[in-house]
Amino acid sequence: MVTKDGKEMRDMIKVSAPATIANLGPGYDLMGMALDRPFDILEVEFNQDGEDAISVTGVGSETISNALNNASLVAGRAVLKKTGNEKVKLSMRLNKGVPPRMGMGSSGASSAAGAFAVNELLGRPLEPEALLICAMEGERASCGAAHADNVAPALFGGVIVITDYSPIRVCRLNVIEGAEIVVVSPELELAQEKTKLAREVLPKEVPLSKLIAQMSAFASLIAGITNKDLKLLGSGVSRDVIIEPARSVLIPGFKDVKEAALSNGAYGCSISGAGPSLFAIAPEGEGIRIGKAMKDAFGSHGVEAAFSTHKCNKEGARVV
Amino acid sequence: MVTKDGKEMRDMIKVSAPATIANLGPGYDLMGMALDRPFDILEVEFNQDGEDAISVTGVGSETISNALNNASLVAGRAVLKKTGNEKVKLSMRLNKGVPPRMGMGSSGASSAAGAFAVNELLGRPLEPEALLICAMEGERASCGAAHADNVAPALFGGVIVITDYSPIRVCRLNVIEGAEIVVVSPELELAQEKTKLAREVLPKEVPLSKLIAQMSAFASLIAGITNKDLKLLGSGVSRDVIIEPARSVLIPGFKDVKEAALSNGAYGCSISGAGPSLFAIAPEGEGIRIGKAMKDAFGSHGVEAAFSTHKCNKEGARVV
Repeated sequence: MVTKDGKEMRDMIKVSAPATIANLGPGYDLMGMALDRPFDILEVEFNQDGEDAISVTGVGSETISNALNNASLVAGRAVLKKTGNEKVKLSMRLNKGVPPRMGMGSSGASSAAGAFAVNELLGRPLEPEALLICAMEGERASCGAAHADNVAPALFGGVIVITDYSPIRVCRLNVIEGAEIVVVSPELELAQEKTKLAREVLPKEVPLSKLIAQMSAFASLIAGITNKDLKLLGSGVSRDVIIEPARSVLIPGFKDVKEAALSNGAYGCSISGAGPSLFAIAPEGEGIRIGKAMKDAFGSHGVEAAFSTHKCNKEGARVV
Repeated sequence: MVTKDGKEMRDMIKVSAPATIANLGPGYDLMGMALDRPFDILEVEFNQDGEDAISVTGVGSETISNALNNASLVAGRAVLKKTGNEKVKLSMRLNKGVPPRMGMGSSGASSAAGAFAVNELLGRPLEPEALLICAMEGERASCGAAHADNVAPALFGGVIVITDYSPIRVCRLNVIEGAEIVVVSPELELAQEKTKLAREVLPKEVPLSKLIAQMSAFASLIAGITNKDLKLLGSGVSRDVIIEPARSVLIPGFKDVKEAALSNGAYGCSISGAGPSLFAIAPEGEGIRIGKAMKDAFGSHGVEAAFSTHKCNKEGARVV
């Protein structure tokens, strides 16, 4: 098969895109990190005579749209549109590994996979930032805002900071090494539009003094990563004075769970993305102990929770 | 002479502390850079039987207090207090090289010199961050706020980001290399309490969307410096959406002067500290051309201006 501009295309592809932690504390809408697992797995083929179609299986798949507003499909179609291949139709099979509505970048992984797969099938016509813009359309379809802090690390891997939104520009920072990333997910009753709700609780206006405190925490986060100073990084993660205070009221026991992480030696702890999961940056070899302490702290508030330990993933979306 | 804790002291010292550019665009109260010149020069001796005294000469010295609230003296006394040497009296001779009320860190240089000199005379009892806290007291006496974004680079040199204010913590970033720093100072009628006024025009509250834009610019600034990417750095410098719009109304022709810098190839341009000077990051060898263009743009608004070109100074306060 051949595209509009004459490039030869593959007919079918299978890709993966990882779970991600957005914000990393004070970097609301601006930072994200790829995790070593879980992944969304997406198979895509062109379906020139039919219609777009997607089937969804895997973790939480019963809550994911299998219609035209599915994040993978929207992102894939955005690539087709940007490359002048609107007439091509897509057939997708999405196997969800990243659980939805836990704050682990589920829609970001699906969006990244959709855009990445179609760009690969077309012979990579899009540059990274154009590809990111397409993937962000999947995020917009899924949660109402075209934020890039999950999609960018799900696409590119590592730790990403968004240095501009108009137009979108991203910068890849060092991968976080020498630390484990603990993710603790409480079993809470989940709203279907959780991410949207988590945005609605945010303040519309912020006092200038808080802006300075937030930016000093953000500086700690960035300088901690670039200087490979895990204490500085962790101190930045833990000092979100704007988003975390607003969102943490949606998470029973939040304060004690964070305190359990920090008092057990975590470098830093905050909400993962829009929550309700929390993440902690733990010294190497301490992830399981810190995860148990956090799970127990949830337990003392009557909340069941599960935890997993991770590494920062230098790879993002890839062909599998 | 011997201090309270038995260390032997020098009797007299002469130190210098450089001009600095605070904020660097979006890094309000959080970033600053030392310049290669001009300097404040401060001579200090202990004066055990007399009273504290300071004489001030040099650029703009007629507007600088020579009383007990002088920034150098306040900073020096803070070092004496913190080290348990309250009874020691100081005799200072301050020769101002950094012009006051131009946005070049005049009070920051005097404060850094005062704290640094007394700490040297005492045999360096204070660690860097304790010394910084003392120097900030000079800044508080001079302009009403104990901000550290001039004092820290005047003390330590290079480019400094403040990663926390409670307690104060700073991180030294890479020195900016391969660029000239152009400072253009308009001859405006100067208010005695300029820095205080420049703080009063700032918004008390900031919309969340502007916070994200500001933080993306701040991320560009930090990542641009740490990655030695002058274009990214300059893009960050130029995108302050909170402080610059508020303060630039105090600077006639600001918009055209900034535009003159950018259209002539500057990587970035913003207000230097609280103004009214502007600074631009210029490609090597282009500083004079860009400075002339900025001066001419002021001229077209009927404002006389002078410019100078600089390098980022890796050294801060030092014995001379």
